[in-house]
Amino acid sequence: MAALAGLGVLGAGRHLWKLPVRLSAGLQGCGPRRGYIAGSAERFPTFGLLFDIDGVLVRGHRVIPAALEAFSKLVNSQGQLRVPVVFVTNAGNILQHNKAQELSDLLRCKVDPDQVILSHSPMKLFPQYHSKKMLVSGQGPLVENARALGFQNVVTVDELRLAFPELDMVDLQRRPKTMVIWTGARGVTSLPLKVKVLCLGVLLLGEPVRWETNLQLIMDVLLSNGNPGTGLATAPYPHLPVLASNMDLLWMAEAKMPSDNPMSDVYGANLFHQYLQMANRGEEEQQTGGQQKQQPSATRSCASILVCTGIYSSQDPGSQVPTPGREELPFHGHRDFSFSPGLLEASHIVHDVNEAVQLVFHQEGWA
Amino acid sequence: MAALAGLGVLGAGRHLWKLPVRLSAGLQGCGPRRGYIAGSAERFPTFGLLFDIDGVLVRGHRVIPAALEAFSKLVNSQGQLRVPVVFVTNAGNILQHNKAQELSDLLRCKVDPDQVILSHSPMKLFPQYHSKKMLVSGQGPLVENARALGFQNVVTVDELRLAFPELDMVDLQRRPKTMVIWTGARGVTSLPLKVKVLCLGVLLLGEPVRWETNLQLIMDVLLSNGNPGTGLATAPYPHLPVLASNMDLLWMAEAKMPSDNPMSDVYGANLFHQYLQMANRGEEEQQTGGQQKQQPSATRSCASILVCTGIYSSQDPGSQVPTPGREELPFHGHRDFSFSPGLLEASHIVHDVNEAVQLVFHQEGWA
Repeated sequence: MAALAGLGVLGAGRHLWKLPVRLSAGLQGCGPRRGYIAGSAERFPTFGLLFDIDGVLVRGHRVIPAALEAFSKLVNSQGQLRVPVVFVTNAGNILQHNKAQELSDLLRCKVDPDQVILSHSPMKLFPQYHSKKMLVSGQGPLVENARALGFQNVVTVDELRLAFPELDMVDLQRRPKTMVIWTGARGVTSLPLKVKVLCLGVLLLGEPVRWETNLQLIMDVLLSNGNPGTGLATAPYPHLPVLASNMDLLWMAEAKMPSDNPMSDVYGANLFHQYLQMANRGEEEQQTGGQQKQQPSATRSCASILVCTGIYSSQDPGSQVPTPGREELPFHGHRDFSFSPGLLEASHIVHDVNEAVQLVFHQEGWA
Repeated sequence: MAALAGLGVLGAGRHLWKLPVRLSAGLQGCGPRRGYIAGSAERFPTFGLLFDIDGVLVRGHRVIPAALEAFSKLVNSQGQLRVPVVFVTNAGNILQHNKAQELSDLLRCKVDPDQVILSHSPMKLFPQYHSKKMLVSGQGPLVENARALGFQNVVTVDELRLAFPELDMVDLQRRPKTMVIWTGARGVTSLPLKVKVLCLGVLLLGEPVRWETNLQLIMDVLLSNGNPGTGLATAPYPHLPVLASNMDLLWMAEAKMPSDNPMSDVYGANLFHQYLQMANRGEEEQQTGGQQKQQPSATRSCASILVCTGIYSSQDPGSQVPTPGREELPFHGHRDFSFSPGLLEASHIVHDVNEAVQLVFHQEGWA
């Protein structure tokens, strides 16, 4: 039975997606999957590192000096990583290979696109929507990202806006002066085919600009059941599916605020650990009971290490780790996760990512 | 004792401000204040009309034909209004005299700027903030409108954004690449004096564009107690005052949706009537008790007439008037108004504004 230990090095920032499918792929891409063998750990790593980027390796556009020290320990003389490493980020406005290149440059080592998990990477797990017409909202290389995730049939908010200008009324400068009427084959203009086909879902690939336009058109698609040119008597329920990344709007950049969401990433790491424990137990039960064997997860556990270079500050009362039972500090985790105070506590708290890597090396008996 | 009857002709649309001070001014500007005398009503109008614009006189950019018919009855041969008329609108992105000119052109009669009540006109009633530094958010002639309301010391969201570019991080295209540091007199750049002075409140003059930028900067001002360049350990409570117009985001333009907020204007008219009843009672008690006499309101009552050219439709189940007790229809009135189902019912429901004016003329014995 595999006993690979996953150790996540995490700062505190926006909500983090950590899914075993992606993580396993990342780990397997960096080395052979093996059982943990004390003593030979230096040759065959039996642990992997899951790095949050913002606040851990980078703050704003600058690399955190401790990250350079940490990575000097993680690479060999050829600049290749010696242990399995995956990078997770809540950025989604960038292509995977561009983010990998950015990290390669910042950290002075070769980072493969497959090692980068963007905010919307988990949407690969929804193949049932990949062939459907989806309204996509966000910034950056939206359509390219949607295609890379598997969505082959998307229409952007801007395309929809141009087809239905009367829906977008907030901006007085671009509010239509006359009403556009799509009259079809015999008329002057006809609705572009791409837009005419009903939307069957909404894809949110991170924050858009002009929230008023995006919110309006997304609501119109939902309230019209995918056909914003029509008016429905009642709002459909359930509404069309909305696949959303970046549900947490609080993160740290150069500005001095905000400071009150330090634990969402730790929460995610602990939630992943909890999932692994449940999956492992299920696997053991299946083996004991002689049931059909599922593909076991390569990862057995996940420990969280909180670094203090992100938004966490032990001295700032406004940014303290929420204490279970202290009701005055709101929980800013994912809406769909029920609140479990125990999951807020990091396995370890260290100064920076360099100390974190030293801690992992020490605990794993790695040079 | 004055017994002027106020009759409001109202459609259903966005939230409506109706304040007695403004209404009285509008009424008094159009004719002498007199007691209601049946029989001589044709020469001395003892009633006034309060017109909602959107959905009653105009829909989108077009005048509703019934409005032209109605106003042909309301003006004399010189195109002058024969009865006191005030126009109320939730538009705030326009100057009062421009709106008056627009109405004059549409309705083919002379409308005075003083007869137009914009969404933010009631902010004249907050002189305690007029000399304070206020952050102003909205569209159109923002600073001019703020000045016209009495606010002499405003800073716009765009001015604040240019001073603190690191606060506005959503739009990747205009996100700052380097951090601006205001170094003061000895440094390279210094924070503009206009922005350096603490904001002491926020003024929302209607919907802005780029909600993400406006929401962020307004929150930064509130969370920093008016000094967004600093970080505070805890969010101040109570926060700085926010004076907001246009709290209701639902109204009807050319689009086929939305359709579920028909009664907020009727609610406002009835609320005003309720206020007048209370004010009149208070006045009578003062006179009876020999207390110091307050200036009586010229307006004694306000009746609401709902027209069906707005978003109200008796046949559309999704846009029905909310029925008291029917919990499935949410109340979309102003947040600060407690819900009184009785205030949802219009005094009269007629087809259009022409029928409404005929009804008023009939009830007032006016030719």
